[in-house]
Amino acid sequence: MRATYREQLDDIMSDLVGMSQTVSHAVRNATTALLDADIRLAEQVISSDEQLDHNQADIEARCFQVLARQAPVAGELRTVVAALRMVTELERMGDLAAHVAKIARLRYPESAVPADLKPTFVQMGDVAEKMVVTAGQTLSDRNIQGAEELHARDQEMDELRKSQFRVLLSDDWTYGVEAAVDVALLGRYYERIADHAASVARRIIYVVTGEFPDDEVWPQP
Amino acid sequence: MRATYREQLDDIMSDLVGMSQTVSHAVRNATTALLDADIRLAEQVISSDEQLDHNQADIEARCFQVLARQAPVAGELRTVVAALRMVTELERMGDLAAHVAKIARLRYPESAVPADLKPTFVQMGDVAEKMVVTAGQTLSDRNIQGAEELHARDQEMDELRKSQFRVLLSDDWTYGVEAAVDVALLGRYYERIADHAASVARRIIYVVTGEFPDDEVWPQP
Repeated sequence: MRATYREQLDDIMSDLVGMSQTVSHAVRNATTALLDADIRLAEQVISSDEQLDHNQADIEARCFQVLARQAPVAGELRTVVAALRMVTELERMGDLAAHVAKIARLRYPESAVPADLKPTFVQMGDVAEKMVVTAGQTLSDRNIQGAEELHARDQEMDELRKSQFRVLLSDDWTYGVEAAVDVALLGRYYERIADHAASVARRIIYVVTGEFPDDEVWPQP
Repeated sequence: MRATYREQLDDIMSDLVGMSQTVSHAVRNATTALLDADIRLAEQVISSDEQLDHNQADIEARCFQVLARQAPVAGELRTVVAALRMVTELERMGDLAAHVAKIARLRYPESAVPADLKPTFVQMGDVAEKMVVTAGQTLSDRNIQGAEELHARDQEMDELRKSQFRVLLSDDWTYGVEAAVDVALLGRYYERIADHAASVARRIIYVVTGEFPDDEVWPQP
């Protein structure tokens, strides 16, 4: 017979996987809203952020209950502590997707992203969404390989951001200051989504192995 | 006789206060480095960030030990859970101060901030530093009034950021795209430092009262 609190832990982990799915949709929709100046999708992302806030409060309360009533040790304790961290990371990724959507809404009916930079934002959105999906899979099957893939993608995101800065700061930039500021902040938001996804993966490695991965390779988020 | 684990908790809280002092110095030095193009101070802030990473790992390990060995409940459990959160917030504030210092270093021997915007960055740096100091005091004396002061200052920061955007996006902006991008990102970093300080305060309210403050007034960070 499984202990009830094991079931509670499994439920918490599966709700975290559910949150990761909400976040990955939010990231995809925010990117589409941004590139297509789609105000309906932008509003949808902003609303889904509220749902993530509720999920967070609910999962936190349940983690707290498990700690207070069951006093878990070893692997189970690591799981609860990691869950408390991951729920914050996921909620934060939702905030960042909402920030992207808010810039889309602010510039509507125009797109905030100049034509020349659309391809890098397509890639950034794609990398970020895939990272969130992989983080969710890593969460659901506790597969450390997925976590390693996330590290490589995080570096890809850094390269995309650097290439954006090169475009932004070149003498050929003709889109003005407002577009430059939007692009710089949007790039920052995508970079942070990627950082959080990589961080979720680090926490899974910690749950599975009891140790954090080598911080030379996996810088602290 | 005090329980040993109460002493451990007190030590954890006092080390968090120590971290808040390191962070407030980092914020002050980062601002000076930025405004005066002081490369020595910039390097110092970047180094102190590493110390904060070590502090974080150490405090996390001790929180984990308390949870595993002492199975705290009620107020003590809230304290440990809040400490795990606050240590992340403080480490993150250190990262953000280091981001400011890295922009200062990148533009050295120039200052990244155009003359017209120096006064708002002086204010932003001042508000951010005071918020970190107040967060530290709130931590050390568990005084909820300090937490309320932080909320007001957080709004002050938001206003400063809005006024920066008005300068940045006005037709009179003559400093070019690079300076605009720097200012936009720097403003974001200061805003996030303020958010984290306000968030530390929310967690203290939670430790003291067992409830989060009204989220209408205190938006989720």
